[in-house]
Amino acid sequence: MVVVLRSDVAQEKIQHLISWLEEKQLIVREFQGQEQCVLGLIGNTAAIDIDMLRGLDIVESVAEMRDPFKAANRAIHPEDTVVTTLGGKGPAIGGGQFALIAGPCSVESRAQILAVAEGVKAAGANFFRGGAFKPRTSPYDFQGLGADGLALLLEVKKATGLPIVTELMDIRTIELFEDVDVIQVGARNTQNYDLLRELGKLNQPILLKRGLAGTIKELLMSAEYIMASGNENVILCERGIRTYESAYTRNTLDLSAIPVLKDLTHLPVVVDPSHGTGRADLVPSMALAAAAAGADGIMIEVHNDPARALSDGPQSLTPAEFHDVARRIFKVREAIGL
Amino acid sequence: MVVVLRSDVAQEKIQHLISWLEEKQLIVREFQGQEQCVLGLIGNTAAIDIDMLRGLDIVESVAEMRDPFKAANRAIHPEDTVVTTLGGKGPAIGGGQFALIAGPCSVESRAQILAVAEGVKAAGANFFRGGAFKPRTSPYDFQGLGADGLALLLEVKKATGLPIVTELMDIRTIELFEDVDVIQVGARNTQNYDLLRELGKLNQPILLKRGLAGTIKELLMSAEYIMASGNENVILCERGIRTYESAYTRNTLDLSAIPVLKDLTHLPVVVDPSHGTGRADLVPSMALAAAAAGADGIMIEVHNDPARALSDGPQSLTPAEFHDVARRIFKVREAIGL
Amino acid sequence: MVVVLRSDVAQEKIQHLISWLEEKQLIVREFQGQEQCVLGLIGNTAAIDIDMLRGLDIVESVAEMRDPFKAANRAIHPEDTVVTTLGGKGPAIGGGQFALIAGPCSVESRAQILAVAEGVKAAGANFFRGGAFKPRTSPYDFQGLGADGLALLLEVKKATGLPIVTELMDIRTIELFEDVDVIQVGARNTQNYDLLRELGKLNQPILLKRGLAGTIKELLMSAEYIMASGNENVILCERGIRTYESAYTRNTLDLSAIPVLKDLTHLPVVVDPSHGTGRADLVPSMALAAAAAGADGIMIEVHNDPARALSDGPQSLTPAEFHDVARRIFKVREAIGL
Amino acid sequence: MVVVLRSDVAQEKIQHLISWLEEKQLIVREFQGQEQCVLGLIGNTAAIDIDMLRGLDIVESVAEMRDPFKAANRAIHPEDTVVTTLGGKGPAIGGGQFALIAGPCSVESRAQILAVAEGVKAAGANFFRGGAFKPRTSPYDFQGLGADGLALLLEVKKATGLPIVTELMDIRTIELFEDVDVIQVGARNTQNYDLLRELGKLNQPILLKRGLAGTIKELLMSAEYIMASGNENVILCERGIRTYESAYTRNTLDLSAIPVLKDLTHLPVVVDPSHGTGRADLVPSMALAAAAAGADGIMIEVHNDPARALSDGPQSLTPAEFHDVARRIFKVREAIGL
Repeated sequence: MVVVLRSDVAQEKIQHLISWLEEKQLIVREFQGQEQCVLGLIGNTAAIDIDMLRGLDIVESVAEMRDPFKAANRAIHPEDTVVTTLGGKGPAIGGGQFALIAGPCSVESRAQILAVAEGVKAAGANFFRGGAFKPRTSPYDFQGLGADGLALLLEVKKATGLPIVTELMDIRTIELFEDVDVIQVGARNTQNYDLLRELGKLNQPILLKRGLAGTIKELLMSAEYIMASGNENVILCERGIRTYESAYTRNTLDLSAIPVLKDLTHLPVVVDPSHGTGRADLVPSMALAAAAAGADGIMIEVHNDPARALSDGPQSLTPAEFHDVARRIFKVREAIGL
Repeated sequence: MVVVLRSDVAQEKIQHLISWLEEKQLIVREFQGQEQCVLGLIGNTAAIDIDMLRGLDIVESVAEMRDPFKAANRAIHPEDTVVTTLGGKGPAIGGGQFALIAGPCSVESRAQILAVAEGVKAAGANFFRGGAFKPRTSPYDFQGLGADGLALLLEVKKATGLPIVTELMDIRTIELFEDVDVIQVGARNTQNYDLLRELGKLNQPILLKRGLAGTIKELLMSAEYIMASGNENVILCERGIRTYESAYTRNTLDLSAIPVLKDLTHLPVVVDPSHGTGRADLVPSMALAAAAAGADGIMIEVHNDPARALSDGPQSLTPAEFHDVARRIFKVREAIGL
Repeated sequence: MVVVLRSDVAQEKIQHLISWLEEKQLIVREFQGQEQCVLGLIGNTAAIDIDMLRGLDIVESVAEMRDPFKAANRAIHPEDTVVTTLGGKGPAIGGGQFALIAGPCSVESRAQILAVAEGVKAAGANFFRGGAFKPRTSPYDFQGLGADGLALLLEVKKATGLPIVTELMDIRTIELFEDVDVIQVGARNTQNYDLLRELGKLNQPILLKRGLAGTIKELLMSAEYIMASGNENVILCERGIRTYESAYTRNTLDLSAIPVLKDLTHLPVVVDPSHGTGRADLVPSMALAAAAAGADGIMIEVHNDPARALSDGPQSLTPAEFHDVARRIFKVREAIGL
Repeated sequence: MVVVLRSDVAQEKIQHLISWLEEKQLIVREFQGQEQCVLGLIGNTAAIDIDMLRGLDIVESVAEMRDPFKAANRAIHPEDTVVTTLGGKGPAIGGGQFALIAGPCSVESRAQILAVAEGVKAAGANFFRGGAFKPRTSPYDFQGLGADGLALLLEVKKATGLPIVTELMDIRTIELFEDVDVIQVGARNTQNYDLLRELGKLNQPILLKRGLAGTIKELLMSAEYIMASGNENVILCERGIRTYESAYTRNTLDLSAIPVLKDLTHLPVVVDPSHGTGRADLVPSMALAAAAAGADGIMIEVHNDPARALSDGPQSLTPAEFHDVARRIFKVREAIGL
């Protein structure tokens, strides 16, 4: 439920209303716009008498929300969320700030990731990604370097200044991620609700991937799990969905998810064309398309030697290919005034 | 099967080989590249002794084609097909030439379509679209003005000079379409093979829409039906596919189909973000994304009064909204060097 | 709109009401139940004043129908439709009467189809199927024997007494099907509305297949096209739908469509496990499942030599395999009291 | 890789070969058939010289396996796995033994579950199911009674003798499930690999649900995660997949998964028509269909008062409705000789 207050209401009266609503076991989110204050009520709003609320002199209007996502709802929080990093000194995502996230699928060695990180930084990337814990369909495939991989990522951060994006799979390893800048939740864990609740107790930004065949609504509800536990630094990531068309692409990249999500929520939206297509040769055109559609960020897999990558080689660009794509992404953003 | 000939072969020897292949009941397509001639063999190639063919002194190499589409295959015809209109004096599609196709879903009246046509032409559209025969899911819904609608479209063509794109549904009405510039095959008829074969006997360009839940391969095989009957002026159109995600969009627009198709075939690829999303507010960002992904054309539904449209109002732009999108489409194309 | 009349209303008053409704350009379908008469109003019911109708002394209640299908709607026609053949002397489908339809995908020769027909008849099949006109994805594949194939099918009918089920693809060949007992509309033509309208002018039963990726509602709306043109002898056929799971089956057979359809419509529902799975080894268990779920008929591809079939060999049973399945189908029907 | 040994080989020689293979870091599974012994090699089989293996006098043949699932593969373990409960004194699943699992979606109170458990036991159910930890899409919905719910389930087990099936969501609560007879992994956790690995260290049977839009192969690979960690008591559960058809059913129940899985793997296959359709009125026909298709078990949601259920009421049967379905399930199984 959204309560829009009149423009000239005293702060004291607002606090009084909030206290009363909180006594009803509701979570109240206050959004102070330029002229008016909006209250978002989360929880069992059936306990509230809407007509009574509408009758209050400080209330301009009350709207029930059909959407089951609340903290993530743009109706409650009309302005874009801007997710910051490195204590506010690092790059930000959302509200016009653009994230270009690049790096290999898996961390393989110090030499590998340092070389890739320097290459992508020179090309304009402002985040470095790499997987230390890898969710692999087969138990017999390479499962990542684990804690050692995390340590290597932090070395790269120190060497390049780039904030690190990496995936957390197991709720029991959460303390290992203390110095990670952005914690990624992979597509197989998008609805691992206990994991989401734990991440909601942290302050770090969470990059939440859409499920393998997840709906837009499920993605927002999973964001809601994190936000309802207290962490509002959530970045949504479109990474391709599962459809009947699998002969030529690994997934079908749903670029319409960008404007759909930006209409429904204030959270930033990032696109991963590497997993979204599964083919390096399609990544450049899909990255440009994502930029043109207004994505707040693009995440691209880059590997110094794709043919020998331990995972996802066929969808990785070389640093030189990434350089060329990055240049054109910036041009497209400029062309459409972003 | 593709036969690549040596670079210095006499034309006489080539004709001799072609005659011999045609005696074997094969269709032979000759593609003269800058240095070499390539022959595409279509039909029952099992009747040919490949080793014998490879042994000929004029043959450099012979490749079997895994793909079941042949005339449409870029391996046979490496250069982009350019589809022309108005006897070569009108706008062209493909090979770098861009089609901006706009107009209402249904032809409703002379006044309506003239107003829309003038609006979209001023904004940069070079084709006018409008439906006279409408495939509607319900037999009780408005089915289009039929032959009267076609007549009105031809009046618009005379008044504005814009070539006309309109849909043919019933094989028995084919002679009514004699003066139509581009004949559209709708998503429900993509695999109406008897219709495709008849269209293959015409010379007019055919805009072939991908089926409601059609695969890339099916789209190419349907193009193959038209081409195998003799008409090579086929334009492919991505218009959204059916997926599990239907809460926020009518279809899921598959923009990766653009680079996938342009890799597989030499035919031009057009995108219809109006049917692809079903929502006017998503059309601008998806049109820009299609342009950035390298589409050869974009087709947008425009209506002078979307709220009162007899069909597809919710996905139609106003002429003013179209004007703004068109301007940005051209900017994106310029930014990426198209 | 459905108008339920009181139980004791004179026939004269009913006719008076019907005439009045028909003057309003509505199609009125009268269903005489055991105690009451129900009128189904089809067309632009917005022209009717519902409150006035409710106020009539012969009217018990008026219900608006949310469902866009009307003639096919069970609310208008609560009792099962029973489709009959051979002028009422042949087997019937629906209302407890079961159709076991068997035969090869394609008619290949007189000897082939006679052998198969005798085999399946001995096993309990009461309809013979075979394709003379074949919709093939590739223009270079075998397209069926055409009119010659139809003639062979009619010979089989004469020899065995089995009514014939065969597919019509091209609206222009409709007169060739005059002696065909059940005309099949294939999955690629389910939304070929001009074809459906023509079939609506015939009296023959139409076996309408669900589209390749067709929804339940689209199937019913396509039945509606046939019925709105005057032919109420429509049999619906579930034949598998297109989903992301294509590694082990050609389609995903949607057996829940049986109870869903039987709830929504009075038309009989037949299941095709051969196309529904694409694998002969899965046909027996899926046929038994369809029987257990209450299908009004099952259609199975049977070929005397599947390995050499010109089409769909991998999904065809031998006559001996069919015999075994048929026996178990009848046992399952008996077990559940059908 | 599968190594088939000759029929007359001394046990000592077999052990010698196994030791040698284990030194190569392979996991070796020995399956003793009636006449011959088959060894399944799991792990990095590339380290083995196949030709050398084929040359051994005790080896009849060596086959490489294309399928990435190994321990779950029927090629390695041709006979059906039979999963037992209550130390071998309870009901078993697989190899002809049938599981009828019934109970409410959520444990709500002692009175509720006792009443339901007695009702379903009287109707022939041999397992009781109920959720204590509930994965709900919204963080604001009822999340289950948790540990208290588990305690209530164990009381029901004591009172009725029925083994308990209940879901584990959070890896950290694993010790609470010590006395649970069958641990369920829900559709949102099918690819939570760390959870699967932990469950692989237990001895209890695991009922593994297919993912929301999971492929057959993914389901088998997830079973492989459990089995590779040492627990071979895995029961697979088809529970409906996500498709474009969502107007009339919550999911599309994929009954062809039953014969497909039983061909690929030796593990028992259970069907959940309640989640598979989301509609109580469709559950009976789909349960009968699952029985006819050869399922090793059927799991049905039963609630004493579906209209007031805290979760999934619309898909729950009453005990009386369950009684009727159970009776007919047994009749169908008898009819087809199971």
